[in-house]
Amino acid sequence: MTQDILARIAAVVGPQGLLTGASEMAPYLEEQRGLFHGKALAVVRPGSTEEVAAVVRLCAEQGIGIVPQGGNTGLCGGASPDTTGSEIILNVSRMNKIRAIDPVNFTMTVEAGVILQTVQDTASDADCLYPLSFGAEGSAQIGGTIATNAGGAGVLRYGNARDLVMGLEVVLPDGRIWDGLRTLRKDNTGYDLKHLFIGSEGSLGIITAAVLKLFPKPTDIQTAFCALGSLDAALALLSRARAATGDSVTTFELIPRIGLEIAVKHVHGVTDPLAERHDWYVLMELSSSRADANLQESLETLLGDAMEEGEVVDAVIASSSERQQALWRIREGIPEAQKREGGSIKHDVSVPISAVPEFIRQASLAVEAAIPGIRPVPFGHVGDGNIHFNLSQPIGADKQAYIGEWARMNRIVHDIVVGIQGSISAEHGIGQLKKNELAHYKAPLELDLMKRIKAAFDPRGLMNPGKIV
Amino acid sequence: MTQDILARIAAVVGPQGLLTGASEMAPYLEEQRGLFHGKALAVVRPGSTEEVAAVVRLCAEQGIGIVPQGGNTGLCGGASPDTTGSEIILNVSRMNKIRAIDPVNFTMTVEAGVILQTVQDTASDADCLYPLSFGAEGSAQIGGTIATNAGGAGVLRYGNARDLVMGLEVVLPDGRIWDGLRTLRKDNTGYDLKHLFIGSEGSLGIITAAVLKLFPKPTDIQTAFCALGSLDAALALLSRARAATGDSVTTFELIPRIGLEIAVKHVHGVTDPLAERHDWYVLMELSSSRADANLQESLETLLGDAMEEGEVVDAVIASSSERQQALWRIREGIPEAQKREGGSIKHDVSVPISAVPEFIRQASLAVEAAIPGIRPVPFGHVGDGNIHFNLSQPIGADKQAYIGEWARMNRIVHDIVVGIQGSISAEHGIGQLKKNELAHYKAPLELDLMKRIKAAFDPRGLMNPGKIV
Repeated sequence: MTQDILARIAAVVGPQGLLTGASEMAPYLEEQRGLFHGKALAVVRPGSTEEVAAVVRLCAEQGIGIVPQGGNTGLCGGASPDTTGSEIILNVSRMNKIRAIDPVNFTMTVEAGVILQTVQDTASDADCLYPLSFGAEGSAQIGGTIATNAGGAGVLRYGNARDLVMGLEVVLPDGRIWDGLRTLRKDNTGYDLKHLFIGSEGSLGIITAAVLKLFPKPTDIQTAFCALGSLDAALALLSRARAATGDSVTTFELIPRIGLEIAVKHVHGVTDPLAERHDWYVLMELSSSRADANLQESLETLLGDAMEEGEVVDAVIASSSERQQALWRIREGIPEAQKREGGSIKHDVSVPISAVPEFIRQASLAVEAAIPGIRPVPFGHVGDGNIHFNLSQPIGADKQAYIGEWARMNRIVHDIVVGIQGSISAEHGIGQLKKNELAHYKAPLELDLMKRIKAAFDPRGLMNPGKIV
Repeated sequence: MTQDILARIAAVVGPQGLLTGASEMAPYLEEQRGLFHGKALAVVRPGSTEEVAAVVRLCAEQGIGIVPQGGNTGLCGGASPDTTGSEIILNVSRMNKIRAIDPVNFTMTVEAGVILQTVQDTASDADCLYPLSFGAEGSAQIGGTIATNAGGAGVLRYGNARDLVMGLEVVLPDGRIWDGLRTLRKDNTGYDLKHLFIGSEGSLGIITAAVLKLFPKPTDIQTAFCALGSLDAALALLSRARAATGDSVTTFELIPRIGLEIAVKHVHGVTDPLAERHDWYVLMELSSSRADANLQESLETLLGDAMEEGEVVDAVIASSSERQQALWRIREGIPEAQKREGGSIKHDVSVPISAVPEFIRQASLAVEAAIPGIRPVPFGHVGDGNIHFNLSQPIGADKQAYIGEWARMNRIVHDIVVGIQGSISAEHGIGQLKKNELAHYKAPLELDLMKRIKAAFDPRGLMNPGKIV
């Protein structure tokens, strides 16, 4: 039976599209944090939408669960199979063509397996910008960024992956192909199917291609590293910067002193750009495509005004793209530095922007009370209210014992988040990692509506089984 | 039975919340184009979300259809009941409170019955911008703008109503209340329910409140009226303007010569601002909150460059806000002027921006071949690919006979639109007006998915019956 179905899949995708050996499947089964260890019947790598549809039809016929997978860079186990070995991984990496680019319409049509960085580079070559950007952009694939509604550092100005998608092509759980590859800015003809698939983590269908929204390419980019007068001053500075620059703030990242210190300590080439020690910093980037943008002057003026008001106490503006990269390395070095500091219990949460300082204070006190010596390293996208509230272990503690506290710390932090109307998963999604947390925190009415949608689209539950709902 | 249910509804909403007399119901039954003439059992005007929920539960119990209604400014009959007199209109006008405004989070929480212009004014008082804007903004209500995913003149920069909603409160068809009033920029915890309700025209539930996204208030606004070298030049000018101004183009409206001429002829105070006659014009507005935006210089430079390239052959920049309003009156006067020119057969369509000129050429030739002497007046949001392709009757033709050609002209135009991957309803929605067109043009697979969603949310079909699907 198993051999029969594998033979039929091989007939669809060809020998290069079907992997069944343990060692050749291994890279698709491992995920980067090592939290999930699934097994699979096979890894299937179709070369076209029609092949995806044919494989899905075969699986539907045989009742085989399908785990859609792109670059496998997700952080919640959404692309990992269960441990039964009865599911297949459907990996879209071979579908990596740029189908079209239209700079006049500011759109690009790409297959799901195109790597995010390739999309960025292709847009750039056409004098456009595709603004989605995050750490794993060199290996994350565009289909996965859409299926998980990825965020990153440009959300403040350009929105999440959701906001950058104009159309989709999706293979449905019964193997039909939905051609929703619209390149339209406006289309009010019934329910918005596109937004249902975006962020559904492959549980309603397999995204095989997308139309992406492009923007004019920025020509003036200014980056500053600012020491704040206080944590609360981050909010005043953000409002000031948005207004003063005509909404040209594309990055606004919070960094705590400890984040800077461990990045300096562990990450090659990272230095503290300011003379004095400060508790809180913001990495701010402005960008504009305007020929006469003159953002440096704008930035100097707004930082001068912010200093007069005490919002900023010291700052440096990068004088070259090398200096800009050096400032970015501080922010980007924090996750790596935290690994080097031992165990790290992570939270990817969001709250209303205006509640960020209060959240950080409350949550820090709560975890410090629970585990004396614990070291909160809250950093990230304060401009979106999205804080990576990551907790480094107490110095000298046992790493495994500390990691064993993961669920207890999650509950403490998530209780506070939910208490101030926040989200327990801001940009990383649910997958397997947060499924129980979702069931605990999500309103029963919302879970009910989600289950009805799942049942309407995938009544047999074969599409990414066991994820989300 | 009827008296019994009306008494029970009155007990919920109070005497001022229930209208049953023919004359008091009349304003809620009429719609502005006079295309639909429905009857209703009653007009119910609840004063709170709880009252809406109680009324919906009563209707669910009795199997009574509900037509949700706001300012009743829709153009497709979506807020009109059928002719049986067995449905109720549930009008949200009395729910008109601004619940909260948070300028730091750039959000405002409002009830569904707040008038759009009140939302704009409230944002402005807090030094913010709520960018949704269209002709009926003085009477359209925010709930309706969301239920229909309204568009308008600011979509190019800020998006449709959909893009401006962060959270919703919705009464479901069974009377449960979904509290989705999130004020979060990022929330990846399962399927996006919000986007399902937006644009569903009240067929999945009744929107009772929303969290809206605000922006910094523009301080520098520049308006130009440009005569184009050709229709195609509109695209080059748009790309040039977006890039040159750092994406500060907030309006980019196409106006044909005939549109200008009839506005000058019929609308008080409208004059031709340019010395010579030209075939095509663009009304362009730039805006920025940046203190040192200096958009006038930017506009002068880009128009100078566009003239050198022949994209623009003449232009005037408004030197005062009075002159800006005078330029806007040209654009806004076109619908009124078309009424005065006799019968007008309307199309609210969109195509990829890059296909706008080709669409206008093809569609104009086709309708001129079908009805000699017909006068196409294609105008509107070329920056979104959204053209109001409205057809004035031949001079001297019989108006009723001409209007009788509505369906035939629709088919000709919509065939061309669909042939170039466009949408037959860009911003006005489906309602009753385009339901048959939708059934004709929409892919069976999409109709199937839409029906599954409808069945999952409203299995008994009581929520805005007979609309969309």
